[in-house]
Amino acid sequence: MSVTRTMPTLQAENGMFLREIRELFAEFDPAKLGENMHAWIRELYPICRSITGEGVRETLRRMQRWLPLEIREVPSGTKVFDWVVPNEWNIRDAYVKGRTGERIIDFQKSNLHVVSYSVPFRGKLKLSELNQHLHSLPDRPDWIPYRTSYYKEGWGFCLAHEELLRLGDEEYDVCIDSTLQPGSLTYGEYVIPGSSEAEVLISTHICHPSLCNDNLSGIVVALQWAIHLKQLAKRRYTYRFVFIPGTIGAITWLAQNETSAVPRIRHGLVLSGVGDAGKLNYKKSRRGNAEVDRMLAHLLRHSEEDHTILDFSPYGYDERQYCSPGFNLPVGRLSRSIHGTFPQYHTSADDLDFVEPGALERSLRICLMFALTLEGNRTMVNMNPRCEPRLGRRGLYRAIGGQADAGAAEMAMLWVLNLSDGANSLLDVAERSNLPFAAIETAARMLEQHELLGDKAEGASA
Amino acid sequence: MSVTRTMPTLQAENGMFLREIRELFAEFDPAKLGENMHAWIRELYPICRSITGEGVRETLRRMQRWLPLEIREVPSGTKVFDWVVPNEWNIRDAYVKGRTGERIIDFQKSNLHVVSYSVPFRGKLKLSELNQHLHSLPDRPDWIPYRTSYYKEGWGFCLAHEELLRLGDEEYDVCIDSTLQPGSLTYGEYVIPGSSEAEVLISTHICHPSLCNDNLSGIVVALQWAIHLKQLAKRRYTYRFVFIPGTIGAITWLAQNETSAVPRIRHGLVLSGVGDAGKLNYKKSRRGNAEVDRMLAHLLRHSEEDHTILDFSPYGYDERQYCSPGFNLPVGRLSRSIHGTFPQYHTSADDLDFVEPGALERSLRICLMFALTLEGNRTMVNMNPRCEPRLGRRGLYRAIGGQADAGAAEMAMLWVLNLSDGANSLLDVAERSNLPFAAIETAARMLEQHELLGDKAEGASA
Amino acid sequence: MSVTRTMPTLQAENGMFLREIRELFAEFDPAKLGENMHAWIRELYPICRSITGEGVRETLRRMQRWLPLEIREVPSGTKVFDWVVPNEWNIRDAYVKGRTGERIIDFQKSNLHVVSYSVPFRGKLKLSELNQHLHSLPDRPDWIPYRTSYYKEGWGFCLAHEELLRLGDEEYDVCIDSTLQPGSLTYGEYVIPGSSEAEVLISTHICHPSLCNDNLSGIVVALQWAIHLKQLAKRRYTYRFVFIPGTIGAITWLAQNETSAVPRIRHGLVLSGVGDAGKLNYKKSRRGNAEVDRMLAHLLRHSEEDHTILDFSPYGYDERQYCSPGFNLPVGRLSRSIHGTFPQYHTSADDLDFVEPGALERSLRICLMFALTLEGNRTMVNMNPRCEPRLGRRGLYRAIGGQADAGAAEMAMLWVLNLSDGANSLLDVAERSNLPFAAIETAARMLEQHELLGDKAEGASA
Repeated sequence: MSVTRTMPTLQAENGMFLREIRELFAEFDPAKLGENMHAWIRELYPICRSITGEGVRETLRRMQRWLPLEIREVPSGTKVFDWVVPNEWNIRDAYVKGRTGERIIDFQKSNLHVVSYSVPFRGKLKLSELNQHLHSLPDRPDWIPYRTSYYKEGWGFCLAHEELLRLGDEEYDVCIDSTLQPGSLTYGEYVIPGSSEAEVLISTHICHPSLCNDNLSGIVVALQWAIHLKQLAKRRYTYRFVFIPGTIGAITWLAQNETSAVPRIRHGLVLSGVGDAGKLNYKKSRRGNAEVDRMLAHLLRHSEEDHTILDFSPYGYDERQYCSPGFNLPVGRLSRSIHGTFPQYHTSADDLDFVEPGALERSLRICLMFALTLEGNRTMVNMNPRCEPRLGRRGLYRAIGGQADAGAAEMAMLWVLNLSDGANSLLDVAERSNLPFAAIETAARMLEQHELLGDKAEGASA
Repeated sequence: MSVTRTMPTLQAENGMFLREIRELFAEFDPAKLGENMHAWIRELYPICRSITGEGVRETLRRMQRWLPLEIREVPSGTKVFDWVVPNEWNIRDAYVKGRTGERIIDFQKSNLHVVSYSVPFRGKLKLSELNQHLHSLPDRPDWIPYRTSYYKEGWGFCLAHEELLRLGDEEYDVCIDSTLQPGSLTYGEYVIPGSSEAEVLISTHICHPSLCNDNLSGIVVALQWAIHLKQLAKRRYTYRFVFIPGTIGAITWLAQNETSAVPRIRHGLVLSGVGDAGKLNYKKSRRGNAEVDRMLAHLLRHSEEDHTILDFSPYGYDERQYCSPGFNLPVGRLSRSIHGTFPQYHTSADDLDFVEPGALERSLRICLMFALTLEGNRTMVNMNPRCEPRLGRRGLYRAIGGQADAGAAEMAMLWVLNLSDGANSLLDVAERSNLPFAAIETAARMLEQHELLGDKAEGASA
Repeated sequence: MSVTRTMPTLQAENGMFLREIRELFAEFDPAKLGENMHAWIRELYPICRSITGEGVRETLRRMQRWLPLEIREVPSGTKVFDWVVPNEWNIRDAYVKGRTGERIIDFQKSNLHVVSYSVPFRGKLKLSELNQHLHSLPDRPDWIPYRTSYYKEGWGFCLAHEELLRLGDEEYDVCIDSTLQPGSLTYGEYVIPGSSEAEVLISTHICHPSLCNDNLSGIVVALQWAIHLKQLAKRRYTYRFVFIPGTIGAITWLAQNETSAVPRIRHGLVLSGVGDAGKLNYKKSRRGNAEVDRMLAHLLRHSEEDHTILDFSPYGYDERQYCSPGFNLPVGRLSRSIHGTFPQYHTSADDLDFVEPGALERSLRICLMFALTLEGNRTMVNMNPRCEPRLGRRGLYRAIGGQADAGAAEMAMLWVLNLSDGANSLLDVAERSNLPFAAIETAARMLEQHELLGDKAEGASA
């Protein structure tokens, strides 16, 4: 399935949040950013990643050219909660040769052909023996599936079902030139400091080989998000981006940071599968009403993007670990099409055509708006809480009365004034008024300039 | 648009609350009351009201013939929170004369022709100069709009757009014979004492000139409501009716009564636009679940009237001030068609035909039922809380058993007995049982007579 | 109306809960159980029951052949809260004879012909006098209604309306050979002890004469339920089955057990009308969110049975007394067609054809599942609350990764682990995950065996 690029029409599309984002990032060029992220995907696509090994290391090294992230290594055998960091897996080559000696299944053509974490193997096998090590998709006969065997030693090949059907009853020369030895688990980390120690965690997995939506899309959106955030003149929050192998990587990171970074996390987002043409999905944190949950729901509702808000469930990506009951972090997940629900999932069809520059870029915009909303969400206090203040005298209200409706900016000011009693955050005001957060926050800043509103955290008292 | 009077069919209409209201007001004659209120509107219609001035004073003086309300004056320059009572505005005459000397725009024909609070002006102007002071409605070319300029000194005329189009390129003789000088802001107040100091505030604005639904309807319904309430032999609540200029009047009243009447307010209702043929709308107080909010929702649900319950918003009438965060009073608003959503709003089409006797009278009935519900809402205590008491022995239950359903009166008694545990008011019982409050309150009184129920406030203990 | 038996197709029907129930009751044979309960109904059908008297006593005596319940007698005149145990009523014969001496209305043919609690009477009456004592159903001319006059002394006959129309204008010989004298009120009780004193109350009324759904269905389902429960090797809860006359029986039981059994009741269910072909209805307790309320709603949602969850109301069966405000016990009610809403209610058409073996049996299954759920509902604690434990190492997770979805058993384990933070019961987990309780409880037991989960009540700490 080839997905037509939406690039040429991107500008003609909805202007979702463009005005708000451009207020902070003057140079924000959607088409260029989308193409840029897609180019990064193309560069990283061929690398054979797994939960450990050179593929991950190489991926992180190339990413360092775009973002100066730190690469961390955790030795095999390190105990991390109920788990142990596994041996490091590396692979040079793998094939199955038939009678004629040509490669019938060839790792060099697609790294999906080898079951990830396959142990070294050399031997001659009859078809009936080989068959026990083959995986294919009968209902998608031309796609190669992606399979892993991290925690059970074994080996296998994945191939298109139509190729499997062509295998004759002969003897095959099988080679898996891999190593599974003590080494380390590798992950990347990039921290953008803010004025407070309170942290926002952004996490994306980096353990999938040649699959585009399922993990490269998350990697490039997180990269681009970090590049933007570090351009901001000031930030209240510290932002921590982690690029980690799924499951064992998140568990390792949590174990290593349990008493350092973890207690500082106030909000978090897992990014995965954010590059395909499907609608946006936000999966709530286990808490269900954390600020991140309410914020993403608010932003998506005002985004003009087709979207769904999903309740938390303990299956999925690394939110499983962040939201385990012993941590219960306020970490949600942003995705487009949901893992396991679209045919391309974990197959060779999750390829360069399956991810679109426009979709990547619109996912980025939601992320940027999330950060702007986090930064802007404060609890304000109306300095004239008894009756409305006289806005007209301050040039904040139209001069001629009697018209049928208040303008949008006036409504936003009236809402902020009415609800800013010290108990409501600006997000609360946005939710109750059903106005976009950006409008509410703009109104609050205008009122603050006129000393009609104070910041509760800074000791304003009414 | 001429609205056909519904009078002739009023009696044939729904009997909404008539039985309950007649229990207290034997002489309740809907048709006569509707006609009476409409006659009051006709009398007050020609007066040129504004937020200050003789128009308001004259209106209140005429109202004193029907209800002995008190007229209060607050001097210009008085500081009221963030505001200052403005200079008093009065107007004798205003016109625009053309070449021939005849009045092309004439205040004597409609007081809507002058922008309210227009400063004195005399001069000769070219059409291009005059045009900057003219307001019209291109999409309603035969209606005169209503405009104000309270807080920005200026002057202007309003006229039908078709008249504006007829103005030739000539010189015009313009006269606004107004005064804007220190004086006072005038409002009316009428208090009906009850057995307790707890107050119910009823507020309606009186600052609009020749507009019928937008403010005369509220004035006459409040008047008639007060006249009924003072006839009651006894009242638990003290009822305070305030007839005030919009915004500045409410702010002034709150400032002047901040430590006296305001702390005694337990419930309140703003009346505005209650005379047109549209469905009833109740706008909740900022609290959202105040007793007045729940009561009006309950009454309207059981009223057979088409209606909507609206969430609070900080735009509208004087609920804006009563519900400002420093007061947060439990004050809602009753309206029919909502300001700004119907074409006649703030135009000359909000005239004597736009308000109907039947609509005024049915609005009055909701108000009266609200008062009866307030008076009747108590928290009762079941004196035999363990198992049902034997109602049959007391003649409260039918003698022959086995029939398919309990009668309505029996169901009401069972609900009152079951829920009267000291935590539920009779309104709570009405809500949970989905029975009309009047049925629940009647059942409670019957059970009280048989000493099966006591009043919690009077120390009944189970 | 003759209802076709559903027996022959029962096995082919849905397998609702069969697997779960058979785990504990290996011999569970739906068809046999349904037939057995229907046979009990046939045996008890002819007895003339009322709220006191030999009919109730005889019914309980026959039930003792199937379940060794205890029969209790409470003397007439005993004060029970606002009530007094009435005199005992017994009846030997009753008839109306016409001119020819043959019985036109004959108690021997149907005990419904006599208004229950009719006082003794003998006399000769004209038709006009007799008519004042006759009850019929004009819109169901061939059915005999069921009527009572417990608390107002009088007498009467019930008959088919077509019979009533045939009565000629002659003199009738009327006889009611009854007694109404001091005696006692009789009820049955059966207690199955559990490992704790906490009790589950199951209550069904036994005061109706020849009516099948309205009360015999409840009696036989409760009987069969008790027979099953006592077979369980161990129980956490003590189960108390009470077979009592409606209203006065429940009031008497509550008065007599107020300080003994009542304070130990943790959950309760009234059974009534559980044998007809209608859908299942669960009526919530007055509390509305008691464990029994949530459990029945959960079970019915996962039952494949058409059903409705009804809010509490103070009309119905003995839940009226159990849920009176002085007790407010967590007692709900299970029924099929609701009293008063189906034409056969309280008529001779509530006969042996109106109740079905299959319906009785499926009602029994809901009751058994309720008990299994009560027994299995615990609050568990995840022993590895930080990140997921490694399920694969323990054989609890599939070996090959990358597939599109987790299996159902794995999902249940993940939900249990994620939510078992000491604040959620297994019912909470089942509700939030929308998985059947049985699946959640099975997962919990498996995790407990692997020491990944502990029972909070037994002191597990994470």
